[in-house]
Amino acid sequence: MFYHDGKLQYKVRVDKPNPAFANMLQQAIGGIEGEIRVCLQYLFQAWGSRGPKKYRDMLMETGTEEIAHIEMLATAVALNLEGAPMSMKDEMAKDSVIGAVMGGMNPRHVLSSGLAALAVDSNGVPFNGSWVVGSGNLAADMYANVQAESTGRTLATRLWEATDDHGMKDMLAFLIARDTMHQNQWLAVLEELGGLNGVHPIPNSFPQTEENKNFNYAFVSTKVNDLEDDANEMMNSRWASGPSMDGKGEFKFKRAMPEGGEPQLGPPDPRGHAQTEQMTGSMGAGMINKIKDAL
Amino acid sequence: MFYHDGKLQYKVRVDKPNPAFANMLQQAIGGIEGEIRVCLQYLFQAWGSRGPKKYRDMLMETGTEEIAHIEMLATAVALNLEGAPMSMKDEMAKDSVIGAVMGGMNPRHVLSSGLAALAVDSNGVPFNGSWVVGSGNLAADMYANVQAESTGRTLATRLWEATDDHGMKDMLAFLIARDTMHQNQWLAVLEELGGLNGVHPIPNSFPQTEENKNFNYAFVSTKVNDLEDDANEMMNSRWASGPSMDGKGEFKFKRAMPEGGEPQLGPPDPRGHAQTEQMTGSMGAGMINKIKDAL
Amino acid sequence: MFYHDGKLQYKVRVDKPNPAFANMLQQAIGGIEGEIRVCLQYLFQAWGSRGPKKYRDMLMETGTEEIAHIEMLATAVALNLEGAPMSMKDEMAKDSVIGAVMGGMNPRHVLSSGLAALAVDSNGVPFNGSWVVGSGNLAADMYANVQAESTGRTLATRLWEATDDHGMKDMLAFLIARDTMHQNQWLAVLEELGGLNGVHPIPNSFPQTEENKNFNYAFVSTKVNDLEDDANEMMNSRWASGPSMDGKGEFKFKRAMPEGGEPQLGPPDPRGHAQTEQMTGSMGAGMINKIKDAL
Amino acid sequence: MFYHDGKLQYKVRVDKPNPAFANMLQQAIGGIEGEIRVCLQYLFQAWGSRGPKKYRDMLMETGTEEIAHIEMLATAVALNLEGAPMSMKDEMAKDSVIGAVMGGMNPRHVLSSGLAALAVDSNGVPFNGSWVVGSGNLAADMYANVQAESTGRTLATRLWEATDDHGMKDMLAFLIARDTMHQNQWLAVLEELGGLNGVHPIPNSFPQTEENKNFNYAFVSTKVNDLEDDANEMMNSRWASGPSMDGKGEFKFKRAMPEGGEPQLGPPDPRGHAQTEQMTGSMGAGMINKIKDAL
Amino acid sequence: MFYHDGKLQYKVRVDKPNPAFANMLQQAIGGIEGEIRVCLQYLFQAWGSRGPKKYRDMLMETGTEEIAHIEMLATAVALNLEGAPMSMKDEMAKDSVIGAVMGGMNPRHVLSSGLAALAVDSNGVPFNGSWVVGSGNLAADMYANVQAESTGRTLATRLWEATDDHGMKDMLAFLIARDTMHQNQWLAVLEELGGLNGVHPIPNSFPQTEENKNFNYAFVSTKVNDLEDDANEMMNSRWASGPSMDGKGEFKFKRAMPEGGEPQLGPPDPRGHAQTEQMTGSMGAGMINKIKDAL
Amino acid sequence: MFYHDGKLQYKVRVDKPNPAFANMLQQAIGGIEGEIRVCLQYLFQAWGSRGPKKYRDMLMETGTEEIAHIEMLATAVALNLEGAPMSMKDEMAKDSVIGAVMGGMNPRHVLSSGLAALAVDSNGVPFNGSWVVGSGNLAADMYANVQAESTGRTLATRLWEATDDHGMKDMLAFLIARDTMHQNQWLAVLEELGGLNGVHPIPNSFPQTEENKNFNYAFVSTKVNDLEDDANEMMNSRWASGPSMDGKGEFKFKRAMPEGGEPQLGPPDPRGHAQTEQMTGSMGAGMINKIKDAL
Repeated sequence: MFYHDGKLQYKVRVDKPNPAFANMLQQAIGGIEGEIRVCLQYLFQAWGSRGPKKYRDMLMETGTEEIAHIEMLATAVALNLEGAPMSMKDEMAKDSVIGAVMGGMNPRHVLSSGLAALAVDSNGVPFNGSWVVGSGNLAADMYANVQAESTGRTLATRLWEATDDHGMKDMLAFLIARDTMHQNQWLAVLEELGGLNGVHPIPNSFPQTEENKNFNYAFVSTKVNDLEDDANEMMNSRWASGPSMDGKGEFKFKRAMPEGGEPQLGPPDPRGHAQTEQMTGSMGAGMINKIKDAL
Repeated sequence: MFYHDGKLQYKVRVDKPNPAFANMLQQAIGGIEGEIRVCLQYLFQAWGSRGPKKYRDMLMETGTEEIAHIEMLATAVALNLEGAPMSMKDEMAKDSVIGAVMGGMNPRHVLSSGLAALAVDSNGVPFNGSWVVGSGNLAADMYANVQAESTGRTLATRLWEATDDHGMKDMLAFLIARDTMHQNQWLAVLEELGGLNGVHPIPNSFPQTEENKNFNYAFVSTKVNDLEDDANEMMNSRWASGPSMDGKGEFKFKRAMPEGGEPQLGPPDPRGHAQTEQMTGSMGAGMINKIKDAL
Repeated sequence: MFYHDGKLQYKVRVDKPNPAFANMLQQAIGGIEGEIRVCLQYLFQAWGSRGPKKYRDMLMETGTEEIAHIEMLATAVALNLEGAPMSMKDEMAKDSVIGAVMGGMNPRHVLSSGLAALAVDSNGVPFNGSWVVGSGNLAADMYANVQAESTGRTLATRLWEATDDHGMKDMLAFLIARDTMHQNQWLAVLEELGGLNGVHPIPNSFPQTEENKNFNYAFVSTKVNDLEDDANEMMNSRWASGPSMDGKGEFKFKRAMPEGGEPQLGPPDPRGHAQTEQMTGSMGAGMINKIKDAL
Repeated sequence: MFYHDGKLQYKVRVDKPNPAFANMLQQAIGGIEGEIRVCLQYLFQAWGSRGPKKYRDMLMETGTEEIAHIEMLATAVALNLEGAPMSMKDEMAKDSVIGAVMGGMNPRHVLSSGLAALAVDSNGVPFNGSWVVGSGNLAADMYANVQAESTGRTLATRLWEATDDHGMKDMLAFLIARDTMHQNQWLAVLEELGGLNGVHPIPNSFPQTEENKNFNYAFVSTKVNDLEDDANEMMNSRWASGPSMDGKGEFKFKRAMPEGGEPQLGPPDPRGHAQTEQMTGSMGAGMINKIKDAL
Repeated sequence: MFYHDGKLQYKVRVDKPNPAFANMLQQAIGGIEGEIRVCLQYLFQAWGSRGPKKYRDMLMETGTEEIAHIEMLATAVALNLEGAPMSMKDEMAKDSVIGAVMGGMNPRHVLSSGLAALAVDSNGVPFNGSWVVGSGNLAADMYANVQAESTGRTLATRLWEATDDHGMKDMLAFLIARDTMHQNQWLAVLEELGGLNGVHPIPNSFPQTEENKNFNYAFVSTKVNDLEDDANEMMNSRWASGPSMDGKGEFKFKRAMPEGGEPQLGPPDPRGHAQTEQMTGSMGAGMINKIKDAL
Repeated sequence: MFYHDGKLQYKVRVDKPNPAFANMLQQAIGGIEGEIRVCLQYLFQAWGSRGPKKYRDMLMETGTEEIAHIEMLATAVALNLEGAPMSMKDEMAKDSVIGAVMGGMNPRHVLSSGLAALAVDSNGVPFNGSWVVGSGNLAADMYANVQAESTGRTLATRLWEATDDHGMKDMLAFLIARDTMHQNQWLAVLEELGGLNGVHPIPNSFPQTEENKNFNYAFVSTKVNDLEDDANEMMNSRWASGPSMDGKGEFKFKRAMPEGGEPQLGPPDPRGHAQTEQMTGSMGAGMINKIKDAL
């Protein structure tokens, strides 16, 4: 169950509203790198958590914190939209600064939300539930979380660069710090689960005896007409020779070569109404009649 | 530039076609854990690669290999669909095995593709370009890739469990092996980039002096009414005390407390046509008139 | 800011797991009538709230409650999936009950989430942020909320009918009750805002003097070749005669008649590369040359 | 069956084409508040209508009218695009007015449609069929319709504010008037169905004896650390005390308290390939072996 | 402007309702091959039509007819759903026919629409406005229309095969006939526009002198390690030798060969926060400082 | 299986980077008219190809070539983004050229990809797998391909018009040439399949004796209140009189007239919880009780 106190986790101050920056902030709300995604991702992982209880608990803690981050950013969007140009009329003729703002605004901030945040990204593309990764495998999920916090922190530093509003920079410095922590937090779980050697290959519960042993530590090179220097560099790279990262194999280099032949599908099923030429072309007319008779 | 030879990277054999399994295989083609995603993800990362050339080269190699994996799976779908029930009529009355197959089939395999693979997942949801992560930050991208290969390998092992067709199990054992390699491959890059200490926090080019230092290594606990035992466990956990994973801080435990007050937005802009009560409710009628006058 | 206590708002018990019912429950999680939608909808409305503070407060309260409903439903999905058939192999040959379950299951519950809830609806279509309505007009938003709770309660009653599991029926009886309350809650705001007469037409801050007065209370009938009886019924209906619901007009009946002529667009801009025949067909060749010259 | 006459329901005149306003108009065509949505919504409700025939008839009438509104808006978009800047070259250097237009334009108006309307909103997000609400419950549908006409009219008034083109303002004054009528029209049905008391809780055919009576008229407050004044205001609000809006209960105020315990899911099914640590962590190694044996 | 008469264009009779077939019919309503798509496609093409008026008129005629087809199919869905199993309880235990129906049903037909059609395809994926093609080039649009009627008629014949309900087969025989006509109708426009030689390459208004003349009639072969027989067949095929279809060139065969070198992007912009190693790896530390200084 | 050589199919040069043009180029990458679509479309058609092998081979050749086109365009996007304005701060105050660029940029090029291409269109809408058409009917697929190359070439010519960068114009002249070839290539297959007469109606394997012969060559006119001149023109048009394009019928003109009556659905199933008035309104209370009893 969840509670709130109506206050912000960290102060949100906008010194000089900028509707184009409001649009950029949307990426951190409804984008694939954004806070709705991590919020739902951690909560769904917690709610579906099977195994040691402490991971469920931790996921719930941080999933709950992320709601407060959406709240902060939604507030920042609304504050950046105060006093925004709401029309395409007189303003158009005005100075280039306003023109740039109008070009960079999300028109739906005027038309759909009345100057408030939307559950969309900075292109206006709605948040999409497919981004919420919860695989049931704890290690895979931790990587999903490290990834989310890595692209999330990268996004936040870019937003930090894109503004010179002191309030906004302060809020972003807070969010950047939280992403630092959360990267470390999920990495701590991976350490507890055994580190590279214990964790990989994910899932570690599938017996490696069942996987194809000619290919499980081979770098397959698909490059043709390669220069010798380039080829040598690739052959001697960290991922094509020496021990594998999980300590369970030896990297090797392998030129791509087809191990399977040309695939051949059967003739079209007449009930699927391909063109007649597809049926008679690949077999005698007799055979096609035989198929028809058989139906 | 790209080339092909018309043959499969590894043989694809279906001993006993199963249209419901064909549908499950779609997840590995057009799903978020699937091969179209990793194929485009590695290629887009390569095409946008800035920095040392060897990473561009490697991404291109593996991105190109992944096209061959889509090809194998698309072939497997088509072969599993041969002889599929194509109607809702007489078959309905038949034995429960066919009934189960019909229930588990994707009707669009009959209606839209004529018994061939589609660019969709096992729910029929189309592949979505938003899943293609390429952030411009190499370390973030490597985590995106490890994550994709981790959920991808988990998916492949589940497909392996879901079938007892020898041909399909053999193909999946190959794909599982490739995922093992690819997990190791992206991890090797992370090692080259400096390992946990060198890589994190991602991006490592943002000066940590600028982030909020009260919060960058603090585990924020949002849990209320906690049992003492649970609280203690959390406080002493790997992620709430001791050195951080990136070696740049010390974990600490912090109860969630609002540092910001209650947010307060301005009154609605009259041109946005909120209800009159929203404007007069939050300020005197005089003020609302003043705003109107000012416009 | 938000908190949690790790417990459920109401008990969730599944007496007899049913993976097909788990799939149906997804509609109440990630569907357009579901809880992620109302949760985000109320929270975004709160975060963007301009005007009397009490409405922001109330929206925040109920938005926070809805997180707990997602939690309950996600738990119910996971419990209904315990012991689910995870393959397409031997089970297929089994009895029709399992066959029906397999047909009704979401394959991604096996393949993607490892027997846990997903942020999707009962067709596997991901939750979509476009469903989160927050218009900045409080009355419009209240209707959006009544609507959400009306289709939401209808959905919950259908789920109640679809199961005979006592635990599930008990949980649904709780959720149905909450929807009853929430319908009443949003209606109470509409009463406070002035009821039908005070609230409509929404937005009530737009001067009705500016709207086209020939059409603002006219029922426009597009039906041709109508039977006299049917036409009479429509003419005398509640919405085609008598006072309007908002008390600000008189309903009238009007046969549809074009007030505008046939629209005529200019010739294609040559830079847009329509077919030549589109340009020369609608004007002389001379004119098209003149346009080309003018560019 | 449907007919047309090639003329517009109301005249569409653009005095001064503005491609950025063309983009804003797209919200009223392909947006969630737009005309494709209401058109399909009323028609699908009509086509699926069960119960008194007059409601089917009325829905069909207005659904048919809405096609004419899409037509008007699509015409308005095309007219606003005449003479639009079609390139990123010389124009860039020109005055700020054209720059603002270029920034506010939808590039697909140039690239994809050749200066004509698209089935997308003002962010270029395609119309989505999930927005078409038709629940089979007439009252829920009427609320969906009032909601659509309320956000629709709000949108239209914002477009009216955003332009000073006389032709466009005249067209919008017509559409605003139609939205006034349609709000009233759907409200008239709700009156016929019994008004607040008769209609609610929706669906009114579910026996309220089956819903959880401790929670069906209780305002659940999730707020913690509340100021006394604020708490008092909430407790005494219209929705926390006094008779409910549907006349079937008494509002009460209730502090949120968990009625369910901490949820506990079973251990992962080994065939789902969680990490080994998830299986051994939550139970003895013996148990995991037992599960494996049992499979 | 549009009108209706409340009657169906052609009779819709369902002799034996089949909810799984109802789901299949959804593909013809909300699928990419379906009627909402062609309806909106023809209407949007008409509304944006520039050039000879007769094409606008024709597009409007057929666009209007298509609304009646959606109506017929929506009616067919509702009739096929009458008496559908609405639960996951007792029915599960019943005979395999009902089990198959339940597996093949769309659960949202029960949960969301109350046994009526939805604006989705047979996977429950919502109709998507991106499918509405209207390019502003009449010939390109005619091909889009021939394509839509070709996959549309293929779909209809597959539905015809999938049912043995006489009423449904009769309705589908009508729709198949309409698709025959519409294929012919759009082809007639292509003939009027000049046939293959006059129409192609589309757009025919772009001067072919501006296109790269080494590549405009060359079949580029990307196949490597080709068998001699296969290569010969390809070289002598209709599309690799002889006059081109548009009569404006001569087909030739060309082995794929890179004409461009390896692409090289600049170093990352420091404000984009790539990893430091990406910046220092590709250039000296001096250069990176120079870039930093220059900002 | 697939290979690459790391070089571009054709040189990509950007003389003067333009981030707004980079955004326009995205339409040719991730848009419905773009290269990801044709790439996957041809490859999926090849992989699902049933019938004469030469068509599979050809589709594979060209599908493989298209990967190189995505590569070229992705490179062009990255080059156009070099030196792009990455913030909303000082630049805003600058000259109108930069302002126009900022308005026309995709903010995700800064925020999400670090100045590289994304798998989205020029509105930022992600590539969607539903666009990949592969019907299993070769002729229908060839029309899908001609259509894709026609809107694709139209798009490319518009991009050519939109830039005056010599490098970009040269690259586009190459891509335009390839589209010319590909249009011709797919048309060659249609000729081989029998031309208009042999190919249509698609699918040609459905017996025309089964289609409704009153409607398969009739132009149905839905226009009412028509002017005599207009009506005459339509009656005498190429598509309303004379031989049909497929040579298998005679066009005729037919006024739209309903052949079916008003549809009538049964009363709502009580378990679907419509409003009570829907059940009692359409039948006596007795009947509704009878239904209830029967359940």
